[in-house]
Amino acid sequence: MERALHPVTPVRRWEHRGPLLPVRPPRPVPTEPDDGRRQAPPRAGPLARERAALAQAPAKPGDVTLAIIPVHGLPEIRPRDDLVGLLLDALARANERLQDGDVLVVAQKVVSKSEGRVVRLADVTPGERALAMAEESGKDPRQLEVVLSETKEIVRWERGVLISETRHGFICANAGVDRSNAGAPDTVVLLPIDPDASAARIRDEIADRAHAMVAVVITDTFGRAWREGHTNVAIGIAGLAPLKRYIGQRDPAGYELRVTEIAVADEIAAGSELVMGKLDRCPVAIVRGLPFDVSEETAQEYVRPAARDLFR
Amino acid sequence: MERALHPVTPVRRWEHRGPLLPVRPPRPVPTEPDDGRRQAPPRAGPLARERAALAQAPAKPGDVTLAIIPVHGLPEIRPRDDLVGLLLDALARANERLQDGDVLVVAQKVVSKSEGRVVRLADVTPGERALAMAEESGKDPRQLEVVLSETKEIVRWERGVLISETRHGFICANAGVDRSNAGAPDTVVLLPIDPDASAARIRDEIADRAHAMVAVVITDTFGRAWREGHTNVAIGIAGLAPLKRYIGQRDPAGYELRVTEIAVADEIAAGSELVMGKLDRCPVAIVRGLPFDVSEETAQEYVRPAARDLFR
Repeated sequence: MERALHPVTPVRRWEHRGPLLPVRPPRPVPTEPDDGRRQAPPRAGPLARERAALAQAPAKPGDVTLAIIPVHGLPEIRPRDDLVGLLLDALARANERLQDGDVLVVAQKVVSKSEGRVVRLADVTPGERALAMAEESGKDPRQLEVVLSETKEIVRWERGVLISETRHGFICANAGVDRSNAGAPDTVVLLPIDPDASAARIRDEIADRAHAMVAVVITDTFGRAWREGHTNVAIGIAGLAPLKRYIGQRDPAGYELRVTEIAVADEIAAGSELVMGKLDRCPVAIVRGLPFDVSEETAQEYVRPAARDLFR
Repeated sequence: MERALHPVTPVRRWEHRGPLLPVRPPRPVPTEPDDGRRQAPPRAGPLARERAALAQAPAKPGDVTLAIIPVHGLPEIRPRDDLVGLLLDALARANERLQDGDVLVVAQKVVSKSEGRVVRLADVTPGERALAMAEESGKDPRQLEVVLSETKEIVRWERGVLISETRHGFICANAGVDRSNAGAPDTVVLLPIDPDASAARIRDEIADRAHAMVAVVITDTFGRAWREGHTNVAIGIAGLAPLKRYIGQRDPAGYELRVTEIAVADEIAAGSELVMGKLDRCPVAIVRGLPFDVSEETAQEYVRPAARDLFR
């Protein structure tokens, strides 16, 4: 299929409910030679503790029981809210503390809201293409306009279903733009501009303010090709290797493994959804007891290049 | 795309290493009117305890910490092995007991092996189509023959990658036929003939022999469209509602939820993979603390009908 079938002009007519917070670019991958474990080099400040934390972690999966702990008591998040502060408050009220080696799982929606990625539909003027698509599908043209502005390429537009490639390279319904749990009527929430940078910022803030070296996974709920039902996946990752690589490893009979890369952060996201729910105002969970490799890699590792993709 | 592009003739030339165990057909879905929670009606014998177990379970997600407990010490599984007996032995040695309301997660490979779904490649004579595909791809023609025999329809055959629709309706690489961790060289393991029936049998045996009313999820590792890395998914389910349905439910602002069905068993499968690993001989895990609806539904709920599928 030809790429960029439907080039999309960003819409600039709405006002954000709050200014976007500055978003830090993702940290560059270190250029040191890979030692095979893909650990980050030691860094200054509290981050230097990550190697120590890792050394304390159990040696491999199978040694440990994993706990997935829901975090309650977060208020409705608004643009410019101090998400990490509110989260640490909620934890304190629950007599829970983040520990070195925890994975903090945060639903995209609260991250987006805190970053001001919220649009009132009343502020949106739909363009021609959104109006035509609305006519065809019965959908809200203003919401379609926002979706198109977040879409790098339309992967499918059939039977009223819009599957987009987002600016991040994720392929999902409606470019991740969602009206549910937006916190206000006639409002949509957009994905963070750079969810990996959001995760890195949350991770660093927690290191600074709670003195815990955690990994952070930002999740969203995606549909799948071929399978009914949605699952949570990782759209932003900090401090955790997104892929467990078995490349070249052999089973006890000497046969090289067929499955070579496990999407660890996607599995963390999926498992955490089980305690989070969609109507319980529980957008945060802690995964405790998972041995993981610290890494500078991000959720961009999950983006399959179009050239290698058999299903577009 | 036209369906049944490549009709496949089953191969009957190999000998199984052990006879297939009798596989019970899936239990019919009860015809009682749906009360909206999709719980199974009370049944006779130990199964009648499931409602009591459910009543003891916490009311909703978010109330509980989930534990995912790996089960070690299972030996290499061979055809006709008593999988549940070996599993209960391993649990006893680990001082662990199954409890009412646990979800027992079992990797497909040990289920398949115990059911004799194992083929020695030396016993396979590849047909013309397998030979041609082997020529094209450099793959083992005997293994391709087995894959084709397990394939209802070829969804993609490109660049040496074969994506099949299996007899169960699952879409995955090589129809789930896998040579790694087969327990012997030059041997492949096939998916169970009816993984839902396998799960139901394991569930009933555990109720009888360990007096615990658990749900069972049989998992396999699938790739995904558009995303790098594999995750575990549920291919067989017993005693647990595969989908958490939010249809018609509204968020606090009154907006109807966009995501209406969460693939709970797929999320259980994915989360459990984090403790199971591929080289640790840990093919079983217990998920404890998850409130779930008891259901007669199966993993067939995950099969998206081709007519509704945008990506074939």
